[in-house]
Amino acid sequence: MQQIKVALCQMKVVDDLKINLNTAKKMIQEATNNNAKLIALPEMFICPYSNNKFKEYSENKDLKQVIPEIQKKAKENSIYIIAGSIPELVNDKLYNTAYVINDKGKIIGKHRKIHLFDIDIPGKITFKESDTLTGGNKITVIDTPIGKIGIGICYDIRFPELWGLMNKEKIDFAILPGAFNMITGPMHWQKLLQTRAIDNQIYMLAISPARNDNPYYIAYGHSMIINPQGEIVVDAKEDENIIYSILNPEKIKEVRQQIPLTDHKRNDIYKLEKI
Amino acid sequence: MQQIKVALCQMKVVDDLKINLNTAKKMIQEATNNNAKLIALPEMFICPYSNNKFKEYSENKDLKQVIPEIQKKAKENSIYIIAGSIPELVNDKLYNTAYVINDKGKIIGKHRKIHLFDIDIPGKITFKESDTLTGGNKITVIDTPIGKIGIGICYDIRFPELWGLMNKEKIDFAILPGAFNMITGPMHWQKLLQTRAIDNQIYMLAISPARNDNPYYIAYGHSMIINPQGEIVVDAKEDENIIYSILNPEKIKEVRQQIPLTDHKRNDIYKLEKI
Repeated sequence: MQQIKVALCQMKVVDDLKINLNTAKKMIQEATNNNAKLIALPEMFICPYSNNKFKEYSENKDLKQVIPEIQKKAKENSIYIIAGSIPELVNDKLYNTAYVINDKGKIIGKHRKIHLFDIDIPGKITFKESDTLTGGNKITVIDTPIGKIGIGICYDIRFPELWGLMNKEKIDFAILPGAFNMITGPMHWQKLLQTRAIDNQIYMLAISPARNDNPYYIAYGHSMIINPQGEIVVDAKEDENIIYSILNPEKIKEVRQQIPLTDHKRNDIYKLEKI
Repeated sequence: MQQIKVALCQMKVVDDLKINLNTAKKMIQEATNNNAKLIALPEMFICPYSNNKFKEYSENKDLKQVIPEIQKKAKENSIYIIAGSIPELVNDKLYNTAYVINDKGKIIGKHRKIHLFDIDIPGKITFKESDTLTGGNKITVIDTPIGKIGIGICYDIRFPELWGLMNKEKIDFAILPGAFNMITGPMHWQKLLQTRAIDNQIYMLAISPARNDNPYYIAYGHSMIINPQGEIVVDAKEDENIIYSILNPEKIKEVRQQIPLTDHKRNDIYKLEKI
């Protein structure tokens, strides 16, 4: 892994594809001007987070242009981009998919959200992603010249098995586009992110849309960069803004030497495996 | 599981077995007078947390009386006691062992700390438990009339595999006697406890010795009771004191219905198993 400056673009997502794409491109340009070499966009950065919108947006012919346009930005600026997620329609199935684009503008991987968000907290929040979406079937770890990256999306953060398996592949940092809401956000967002960083001794980059006022779903915001010790390096709070930090491979090495969790796993007692 | 009042005795541990046993018995009596039905004592409640002390105390003939005396208290008062941990010497091997005693005064289980605490944060804290201790080989889940209980000790909290496996056995709550220190305590103690509660949707009862002034190892304190939502119900702070709460099976059920994490595990993608 290299020492690298990263930027998380906590953009305000509205119910208009062109405006969203434009916001994303402008924020990518600003982050590039500030020397970021890896830039991440939030979950569903292109459309409101709503079951009836995923389908509608996926059928919009302009959606096909979104990833190519982001690839162009990556190539022009020689930067890596994690294109948060968009609704991906394949053979009549709809996925919540993040694209990883390298500094040549090439798609080098993608992650389809594995765990679907079907929750029901009466009087507070009810959401059933599985009404429209299909879960992905693959754990996503991408080896790049800038580091080995694990990707999860939103609700994927709640499953330590996933993160433990990424850790087994020796990832350096993880990126989680995610849109927690005003109920589960204050309750769980920060704690889950910090503990996955502590358990796996990785940088954790969590990128949310900005707090919005759409009637469908209010995003919690609070994109954050957490170091391998579990400390919050920077928190984007609620509004639209970009946060930055430098990821340092020496910090990862130091934390892993000090508390060698991987060596201390009791592989004679339990096993965690991919199927 | 029954609705049950629990008490965590955050006792100040000194370098004197008899004083420690006496403190434990007095605190158990006080908690009983306050109607607690399950009472927990901290990790190494009988001896200072130090490699040269574990051995010395384990060879002290008075140590043999400790658990029988605690059993007597349990029987007299018809209460369950988790006798935090003591150094257990068996065939020349030394374990860090917690005893679970039922309301008839019978030992119904014990947990030997599985993961040994060998860490080295230069200039801050260096400790190598494996110099004197041997790790246990068993995951401890005990089914009782008051609930299904999982037990871990201190450093065991850092390994999500262990907690995931307890969860598979459908525990209602977990007890963690633990003595984090003044470095790892502020960094990680609370976050790890809260996230294990959130991930497994259980009550988490963490019981530390009180902040002490012994020259060997300063315990962080902050015993706490956390609900299945991950909220801290009560925090004992630094000093010697007892904290109480009522565990409510309805709360566990509610949280698991609202966010059905167990149903959402992707058992077609990963597996976590005991060996």
